[in-house]
Amino acid sequence: VLAASAPADWRTPDPEHTLYLELPSGRVVLELAPQLAPLHAENVRVLAREGFFDGLAVVRVHENYVTQWGDPDGKKEVREGKKALAPEFTLTGARARSLAFRPLPDPDTFAPEAGFVAGFPVARDRKRQEAWSVHCYSMVGAGRENGADTGSGAELYAVIGHAPRHLDRNMTVVGRILRGMEHLTALPRGSGPLGFYEKPEQRVPVLRARLAADVPVPEREPLEVLRTDTPRFGAWVQARRNRQDAFFVRPAGRLDVCNALPPVRTPPAPAP
Amino acid sequence: VLAASAPADWRTPDPEHTLYLELPSGRVVLELAPQLAPLHAENVRVLAREGFFDGLAVVRVHENYVTQWGDPDGKKEVREGKKALAPEFTLTGARARSLAFRPLPDPDTFAPEAGFVAGFPVARDRKRQEAWSVHCYSMVGAGRENGADTGSGAELYAVIGHAPRHLDRNMTVVGRILRGMEHLTALPRGSGPLGFYEKPEQRVPVLRARLAADVPVPEREPLEVLRTDTPRFGAWVQARRNRQDAFFVRPAGRLDVCNALPPVRTPPAPAP
Repeated sequence: VLAASAPADWRTPDPEHTLYLELPSGRVVLELAPQLAPLHAENVRVLAREGFFDGLAVVRVHENYVTQWGDPDGKKEVREGKKALAPEFTLTGARARSLAFRPLPDPDTFAPEAGFVAGFPVARDRKRQEAWSVHCYSMVGAGRENGADTGSGAELYAVIGHAPRHLDRNMTVVGRILRGMEHLTALPRGSGPLGFYEKPEQRVPVLRARLAADVPVPEREPLEVLRTDTPRFGAWVQARRNRQDAFFVRPAGRLDVCNALPPVRTPPAPAP
Repeated sequence: VLAASAPADWRTPDPEHTLYLELPSGRVVLELAPQLAPLHAENVRVLAREGFFDGLAVVRVHENYVTQWGDPDGKKEVREGKKALAPEFTLTGARARSLAFRPLPDPDTFAPEAGFVAGFPVARDRKRQEAWSVHCYSMVGAGRENGADTGSGAELYAVIGHAPRHLDRNMTVVGRILRGMEHLTALPRGSGPLGFYEKPEQRVPVLRARLAADVPVPEREPLEVLRTDTPRFGAWVQARRNRQDAFFVRPAGRLDVCNALPPVRTPPAPAP
């Protein structure tokens, strides 16, 4: 299906909404979701531009759950950004209705419908006029304390295990990691409560975080994501629902939204 | 819920069906599922006892999918065990009907019912009189070639990502990793096709594999698993469906089988 795709089936993520996290082992590429969490996506952009993330650290690696990074001491000051924001857990009313939502055909355990908005996994309840981001593997959310308005994106976590869907509608999801997940999951697990590292020297530094737009073009990560609003995506979903290669004796006939995250590729070189 | 549990709510895995894999970073504890894959569980026991796994290696770490270990060259001879077995992908008829199946209350994307048999995640289709193991994070299956009868447990993989449910009914699941998943997931990803390591020196050695029954008691891993056939397990499921702690503003009211794998604990010290 993908081999037969046309260039127009793919999109290049907006460099203004793409964040590069530079870890010692390599680069993590995070695409922000301003359609779903505009306040948090904007705040992450502002924080990145003021250098807030530079020199922070991975402080928590919780097996089959999340890797989290931020300011270990909570003392670093913000200049332009915010350290607390109104929650963006669920879109409601007109905002939910106006989303260009592409549903998957199969039932979802947690919601009346699951599918995609602009490439991101989303669940929907039409009767309640609600839509919300799904906590799939590789999705990134804003850490917070017990208060719903205590997060801002200054502290972020990535899902590194089976989708913790109980976090849906309880956390603001800011985007998806398109490349470099292995830099967040192939890390020693923290031995403290909730997987926090117990000793400062165990933390993994976030060397630098920049928007792709602020990186010289030759240093940017060339990548494309399969569009979710095309017939090609529908064909890809069908192929994943019913795998035809010789290995499979019994195609599932079903697909979970978290097994349907749109493929990411390095764009082919232009014809000479 | 767990703090209020009684000793009888927990079980100690059978040492004859518990395999210790010793990797350079530590021990992985695998509980075999003879109820669901008797031929493969028995073969893994025989292979362990004849030392077949000793000195083999992790050959593949496929991001958000599986870590696989076995004989890199495929040349190691077996003595008592088998290198190929009839598949145990799906239990049918009387064998499916006779399982002590405990269903979860929520809908499953892939099957009419999902729940547990003897502590292992299982899906069921009563109409078709079929039951099969679910590929949750931490479940272990027998690698194979395209032929359905080409696996035996001599090569094994553990799920290290979001449940790849398309493998259900296509692979024989031999058990679940109860402890030490981090030794399989915090590994460098393989850069070859399907996540295979491209260079022999990248492989991670399996130093030794023994049944717990063959290990002196003081060297065994003391652990217990919450029974899935008790009212306590039902109460734990309810608490996970509707999380009551102050952090959650909106309990999910639903639970996925792969987020309900029974908890594992180190048994408390006996009262003095």
